[in-house]
Amino acid sequence: MTPTDAILQPRYTGIASFMRAPIATDWTGVEIGLIGVPFDGGVTNRTGARHGPRGLREASTLMRAGNQMTRTMPFQLARIADLGDAIPDHPYDCTASIEDLTRYFHRVQDAGIIPVSAGGDHSVTLPIFRGIARDRPVGMVHFDAHCDTGDQYHGCKFHHGAPFRRAVEEGLLDPKRTIQIGIRGGLNDIDLWKFSFDSGMRVIMMDEFTRMGIDAVIAEARRVVGDGPTYVSFDVDGLDPVYAPGTGTPEVGGITTVEALAILRGLRGIDCIGGDVVEVAPPWDPSGMTALTGATILYEILCLAAESVARRRG
Amino acid sequence: MTPTDAILQPRYTGIASFMRAPIATDWTGVEIGLIGVPFDGGVTNRTGARHGPRGLREASTLMRAGNQMTRTMPFQLARIADLGDAIPDHPYDCTASIEDLTRYFHRVQDAGIIPVSAGGDHSVTLPIFRGIARDRPVGMVHFDAHCDTGDQYHGCKFHHGAPFRRAVEEGLLDPKRTIQIGIRGGLNDIDLWKFSFDSGMRVIMMDEFTRMGIDAVIAEARRVVGDGPTYVSFDVDGLDPVYAPGTGTPEVGGITTVEALAILRGLRGIDCIGGDVVEVAPPWDPSGMTALTGATILYEILCLAAESVARRRG
Amino acid sequence: MTPTDAILQPRYTGIASFMRAPIATDWTGVEIGLIGVPFDGGVTNRTGARHGPRGLREASTLMRAGNQMTRTMPFQLARIADLGDAIPDHPYDCTASIEDLTRYFHRVQDAGIIPVSAGGDHSVTLPIFRGIARDRPVGMVHFDAHCDTGDQYHGCKFHHGAPFRRAVEEGLLDPKRTIQIGIRGGLNDIDLWKFSFDSGMRVIMMDEFTRMGIDAVIAEARRVVGDGPTYVSFDVDGLDPVYAPGTGTPEVGGITTVEALAILRGLRGIDCIGGDVVEVAPPWDPSGMTALTGATILYEILCLAAESVARRRG
Amino acid sequence: MTPTDAILQPRYTGIASFMRAPIATDWTGVEIGLIGVPFDGGVTNRTGARHGPRGLREASTLMRAGNQMTRTMPFQLARIADLGDAIPDHPYDCTASIEDLTRYFHRVQDAGIIPVSAGGDHSVTLPIFRGIARDRPVGMVHFDAHCDTGDQYHGCKFHHGAPFRRAVEEGLLDPKRTIQIGIRGGLNDIDLWKFSFDSGMRVIMMDEFTRMGIDAVIAEARRVVGDGPTYVSFDVDGLDPVYAPGTGTPEVGGITTVEALAILRGLRGIDCIGGDVVEVAPPWDPSGMTALTGATILYEILCLAAESVARRRG
Amino acid sequence: MTPTDAILQPRYTGIASFMRAPIATDWTGVEIGLIGVPFDGGVTNRTGARHGPRGLREASTLMRAGNQMTRTMPFQLARIADLGDAIPDHPYDCTASIEDLTRYFHRVQDAGIIPVSAGGDHSVTLPIFRGIARDRPVGMVHFDAHCDTGDQYHGCKFHHGAPFRRAVEEGLLDPKRTIQIGIRGGLNDIDLWKFSFDSGMRVIMMDEFTRMGIDAVIAEARRVVGDGPTYVSFDVDGLDPVYAPGTGTPEVGGITTVEALAILRGLRGIDCIGGDVVEVAPPWDPSGMTALTGATILYEILCLAAESVARRRG
Amino acid sequence: MTPTDAILQPRYTGIASFMRAPIATDWTGVEIGLIGVPFDGGVTNRTGARHGPRGLREASTLMRAGNQMTRTMPFQLARIADLGDAIPDHPYDCTASIEDLTRYFHRVQDAGIIPVSAGGDHSVTLPIFRGIARDRPVGMVHFDAHCDTGDQYHGCKFHHGAPFRRAVEEGLLDPKRTIQIGIRGGLNDIDLWKFSFDSGMRVIMMDEFTRMGIDAVIAEARRVVGDGPTYVSFDVDGLDPVYAPGTGTPEVGGITTVEALAILRGLRGIDCIGGDVVEVAPPWDPSGMTALTGATILYEILCLAAESVARRRG
Repeated sequence: MTPTDAILQPRYTGIASFMRAPIATDWTGVEIGLIGVPFDGGVTNRTGARHGPRGLREASTLMRAGNQMTRTMPFQLARIADLGDAIPDHPYDCTASIEDLTRYFHRVQDAGIIPVSAGGDHSVTLPIFRGIARDRPVGMVHFDAHCDTGDQYHGCKFHHGAPFRRAVEEGLLDPKRTIQIGIRGGLNDIDLWKFSFDSGMRVIMMDEFTRMGIDAVIAEARRVVGDGPTYVSFDVDGLDPVYAPGTGTPEVGGITTVEALAILRGLRGIDCIGGDVVEVAPPWDPSGMTALTGATILYEILCLAAESVARRRG
Repeated sequence: MTPTDAILQPRYTGIASFMRAPIATDWTGVEIGLIGVPFDGGVTNRTGARHGPRGLREASTLMRAGNQMTRTMPFQLARIADLGDAIPDHPYDCTASIEDLTRYFHRVQDAGIIPVSAGGDHSVTLPIFRGIARDRPVGMVHFDAHCDTGDQYHGCKFHHGAPFRRAVEEGLLDPKRTIQIGIRGGLNDIDLWKFSFDSGMRVIMMDEFTRMGIDAVIAEARRVVGDGPTYVSFDVDGLDPVYAPGTGTPEVGGITTVEALAILRGLRGIDCIGGDVVEVAPPWDPSGMTALTGATILYEILCLAAESVARRRG
Repeated sequence: MTPTDAILQPRYTGIASFMRAPIATDWTGVEIGLIGVPFDGGVTNRTGARHGPRGLREASTLMRAGNQMTRTMPFQLARIADLGDAIPDHPYDCTASIEDLTRYFHRVQDAGIIPVSAGGDHSVTLPIFRGIARDRPVGMVHFDAHCDTGDQYHGCKFHHGAPFRRAVEEGLLDPKRTIQIGIRGGLNDIDLWKFSFDSGMRVIMMDEFTRMGIDAVIAEARRVVGDGPTYVSFDVDGLDPVYAPGTGTPEVGGITTVEALAILRGLRGIDCIGGDVVEVAPPWDPSGMTALTGATILYEILCLAAESVARRRG
Repeated sequence: MTPTDAILQPRYTGIASFMRAPIATDWTGVEIGLIGVPFDGGVTNRTGARHGPRGLREASTLMRAGNQMTRTMPFQLARIADLGDAIPDHPYDCTASIEDLTRYFHRVQDAGIIPVSAGGDHSVTLPIFRGIARDRPVGMVHFDAHCDTGDQYHGCKFHHGAPFRRAVEEGLLDPKRTIQIGIRGGLNDIDLWKFSFDSGMRVIMMDEFTRMGIDAVIAEARRVVGDGPTYVSFDVDGLDPVYAPGTGTPEVGGITTVEALAILRGLRGIDCIGGDVVEVAPPWDPSGMTALTGATILYEILCLAAESVARRRG
Repeated sequence: MTPTDAILQPRYTGIASFMRAPIATDWTGVEIGLIGVPFDGGVTNRTGARHGPRGLREASTLMRAGNQMTRTMPFQLARIADLGDAIPDHPYDCTASIEDLTRYFHRVQDAGIIPVSAGGDHSVTLPIFRGIARDRPVGMVHFDAHCDTGDQYHGCKFHHGAPFRRAVEEGLLDPKRTIQIGIRGGLNDIDLWKFSFDSGMRVIMMDEFTRMGIDAVIAEARRVVGDGPTYVSFDVDGLDPVYAPGTGTPEVGGITTVEALAILRGLRGIDCIGGDVVEVAPPWDPSGMTALTGATILYEILCLAAESVARRRG
Repeated sequence: MTPTDAILQPRYTGIASFMRAPIATDWTGVEIGLIGVPFDGGVTNRTGARHGPRGLREASTLMRAGNQMTRTMPFQLARIADLGDAIPDHPYDCTASIEDLTRYFHRVQDAGIIPVSAGGDHSVTLPIFRGIARDRPVGMVHFDAHCDTGDQYHGCKFHHGAPFRRAVEEGLLDPKRTIQIGIRGGLNDIDLWKFSFDSGMRVIMMDEFTRMGIDAVIAEARRVVGDGPTYVSFDVDGLDPVYAPGTGTPEVGGITTVEALAILRGLRGIDCIGGDVVEVAPPWDPSGMTALTGATILYEILCLAAESVARRRG
């Protein structure tokens, strides 16, 4: 399972699969599945993330075989394929859609495949968790401007501002092994993210982030997640909007990509059992910057996952 | 109730209400209500029409006191106000949202106000009909690339491809007094719009439209709707996408704005009991062309409604 | 005075002068001067036309040596140069700027040069007229959505909605030999353009334009201007906004470029003593369409002027 | 070989192949191949058409199973697949690239597959001809602003302004059965397209096109190509730039999409042995209009080809 | 006076007032007035800031009830309303417009309202000062790429490069209590900002800014302004252009939003008697980034002002 | 040779030459030549840099007479002119084009002119080197995301990923006096830049760059290049893509402009014998940010070159 060779076929050519990975209709043998989740029925403000998987596939054709900084070669470490999209059957009903996606990620889990997903809005991470954490709660490194541990909103418990409260309630996510990085912005309810604090998540808001510096953030993240199974969830609105203008809930004054990439590389060695990049909304991204950024982040997460696969294989 | 005077206050100044009309919190005395319906939970492809009312308010500040072609002065003929937005309480559930909007438009009807609305996707026209046509079915002049007389899709009966089937079924719309203009594009089910034909609507597809010419289209529309109460529903995707790129389901090869404006002016004298402009999706409209076009169409519909008000007043 | 040869030097190369014409610091021998007028201090709504000359220079490098439809070779018929820009010394004062520009166009007239200008907003045509019509009134073929025969607005007599009233009052423009084509849009004062009608200008509003057809419009224009000296003033907002989105006062439902080019070519043989393209506002033109359209129109006017020069030369 | 069902999988989901057709690595049984040709090394002005296939794949996911106007169901008439891209091995050398592409299209011809291609610049049509017309010259309906029958330019005989001269010289194209529609714009050499006229091609320039009207153009095209094998080549710059801004050599004042679609549908019944849409350049297409337009045109050509396949099958 | 509740009414709904604050036609009881100043007649380069108030109103609907970092709830601390726009009666004459605005801000001062304004170009701060500093000079924290202490330019003393020289000359601004942060870019007159230095303003140019670090900048700003009444003027061109591309005089290499927000929060406790965000020019801001950034900055200034109001109230 | 005075002629006026410098057709007396190189035939991914010189000329009109940070007045230190463009005669053949450009830069060298060039893609630096380093190898400070020391690709030795290997091989560039700053991104061949390391170039990858800090980078650059003749080559993709989205091979996570400008100013005193800014691709730069950034960088390089000229003059 090798991706298209960009030396033979320039990167602007060919059908756009994630990272130019082979497209798998038969999942046999796949160790890591690149999966699109074109659902944005859980947003509270701007929609558009349903177009995220297409945008990320296109931009990810610019990624390459090896990671120059870490010298990781993900496609040599693990069998990686583009599994296509997880498509809810009830796009007009947020709650039913989350159920649809749950069934899909159960199938992924059944196949023994590590999901590295491209959203979609952040509500899709809950059904992913229902797959990967079916057997025991997992830890998480979470990049975001928002804690996403709110509660019911306009009659729905499963919107994109609440997945991690739900995940803790369902026993999928261990709040003590969860770190949330980049939190900022205004709040309509000043205690909106109280659940994060009460449940014991480690929350690094932007002002603390700036004071700590990257090395301390990396150390803290490693301390929090430890050696246990860990998911990496990257909402692009954790980044400053100049790096990710194409998103539904931008918040001014966020993480730079230099910082984000350094943190992700600083996580090498954790036991990465999946990850995602969410909230890429191409309609709000006229320059394509967000998709390019998101694809680069997704590639780094793929490297973490591939190294974990290789490590587990021994 | 006079709009802001653009001679004293240039058009780029001030808070953007529809047509710079006064903002009414008290509806007493209002004859025509300009209403935003920021809902796009019924779309089948691209979202974004939830931002339509804002975009149309902004663009409509370029409209002016009088219609140069017809010399109609709408604000002298009727008391017109911006009523703000009709906001569904269940944005994550299409079916429940349609119910929420129904209650709002019942209130508008109860107040004796003629609604001239700005969408939102086309699913919002059904709850508008439940208000204006509560007492008897109405006729309709309908501009669109799609008949919007489909049936259930992905578990929802109320999406933006079905409102007019529902309206006929509920006895709100008289199909014999309905004309649909500008229909075109591909179909996944080649008989998707069968209901239009079977129920007796007059469907003018684009190829017939081109052959007929504007004068014949006007004559046919007047013949179909006759003297009865008539609603004007304008989906901007009825226009060619160059005039309205910012929409969710663009179809190449449509009506020009010269043609659309001529037809609308050709309808003068019908009994216009309301109207709407729908499917303006600002995220897909980088140049603002769609909002400007939509606002201009909305102004023409407002003129038709104001003339009808004045006529009924005698 | 030959323009850069696009066969030797591809059109995307080199310093951008109008039509790739030679840049003249010494005006001796120049018969037709291509002149930029980067002034937009006379607009009533959106600004940005001050950037028009740069935008038109850039786009005009796509124009070519010969006109395929008419087989006119303007640079073989007349000595043509880019004279640079007419720059007002008082950009913060509309009235004083018009005086500054008047002095510039007197110099152009003194040098015996026919001005083919690129605006700037439409207020710049008045000082151009003060040059070219210093000795006797001229006729005009005027493309525009607005008659531009209004009066004082916000304390200024010389804004872009009034130049032709001023020109008639100053004896520069013969209203009986003036035709205005493409007029439309709303009006805050329904009799705003009364001066046009009262003074005897021929006004073709868009609805009449559509009914007449191109051949009749050409015939009417030729009848109105006759054999006398005639100026061609082309406000890009006369075109439908899809062809010219980048302008300060767009009006939906206008002339197509196919129609405009046909009319301009239909004017061959009139005594063209100058012309302009105005109201190109690049900040509102993300795709560059308006500048390309404007440059193409400017080229057609240049052909008319060059043919007139050659004809007068005998 | 059925395309993805848009009723089950909304059009914004899944990997973007042409028309959502199946991706074929094994060509066995394929009757019509949708092929991308990501090459723009032959342009004379703006590049970017190398990104055309990706843009067209993405936009073509909005196409649907059936053609509402003609009721043609192409995927029921013929076995259609996305063959991926024809990729030249020498992107830095225009002449060598044309040879590379020639080898590819010989293979397509050997497989008995009708190519319906997405460019790339217009230089790619010559190697396509070397495949489809290997055995006998073919006729052509050619939409374009340029005749593309020029000669050597800057040391290259195979650039995008010359393919049809080369095709005639190589005995691939029968000039007597060739019609060129939409020609316009300036010319650096006023006799640049002399070869078209001298060799007997029927050239319909835009002014004649406007005078003739659509029905006469259709009749003329049918008369010229007759019953023989006919290729349909559609350069999007034949359209007015408002419909196709994203192209390398835009020319103001062209064909509308209403006209183009009507002509293509008017060609039903000709013996269509292939076709292409070329010069879609996404970097110059911020709104995506050009790709959407191009995909719609490509779908119509696909319908013509599928009907021909079915007819030949009997 | 409470703003629209975003929990009940999603942020994309409703008429866009600043921060969704109530629109006040009666100023009684208002403590802080949010005021638009749609004037850009004082710019030296690109115009467009006249559209700033509209852009900022729209973007500010994304702001929320509370400031997560400081836990300030501005609408609970002070009575805040959107007062609409200050509109000059002489838009064609920069000098007269400044007089018009002066009268407006005298009225605001007479009403005892603290102005928090949204420009417009920076020339509008002078008339604001004539209101707030009518009785005694004030101090200022000034973010900008330019000192704006130049002199007459092209016959006008009141353009956007000179307001603070004028303010000192008129005894409105205490230069010893003025700090200017972010100064950079080229200069046509290398001593253009000599007045700042000569009058005793503290100027922190970008290279010093980088060397100092945020904490030292905050300390220095607090030292300079001390306990006296202090105005906060924020020209978005003080930010790096990636955060604020939509502005008239961008200068590469500026302040980040992380830095700017930290400094503004570091000013808590100063006696803030008003503030503004200026030079937001939406026509140059295709992604809306500048308006979002400007609205976020404006919200922080509003928090400073509200805390000062509450403190003075005791 | 003085540039246009922006005090007399606002920066948006006049024909756009580089930095508003005089346009020289006669090169006599010119010490520094500003040269456009509109060639992008050497790119491996996105094209468009052929439009870079036009974009940079336009944006550079915003530059000014003096450098506020360093107080350098380049036009007072050296005779500077815009020489126009270096145009290859074989745009369809990368290898031949490099030869064409070589002849041009030999002429520049013969005239004793220091070239400060605006690309074009990075392949153009090799022919520049063949001019300036004809007599002895030079050192280089090189900003880039890529080392550009690859080898043959798709049959061409002279593409934009290989110029510095070629320059070393040809004895034009001293690898021991070469420093490459900002390297990052993925690699298809993980040892693609092996030549840089093997030949002794100092490579500062982004992670080392972040750890070192600016002062150390400056010190290292000065140590590497020493007192010998040194070229400054600035590929805008060395910057983070938010500062330079309009480029062919963007890599997320790069240098900020604050950092880049500080480094360039930190190089004052080196013997700068030329420089360039390359890979500005306007079609991918909808906001114009890249051109503005590139022009600012080019101005700093011009200051370095002018100071060196003055120093050599004594």
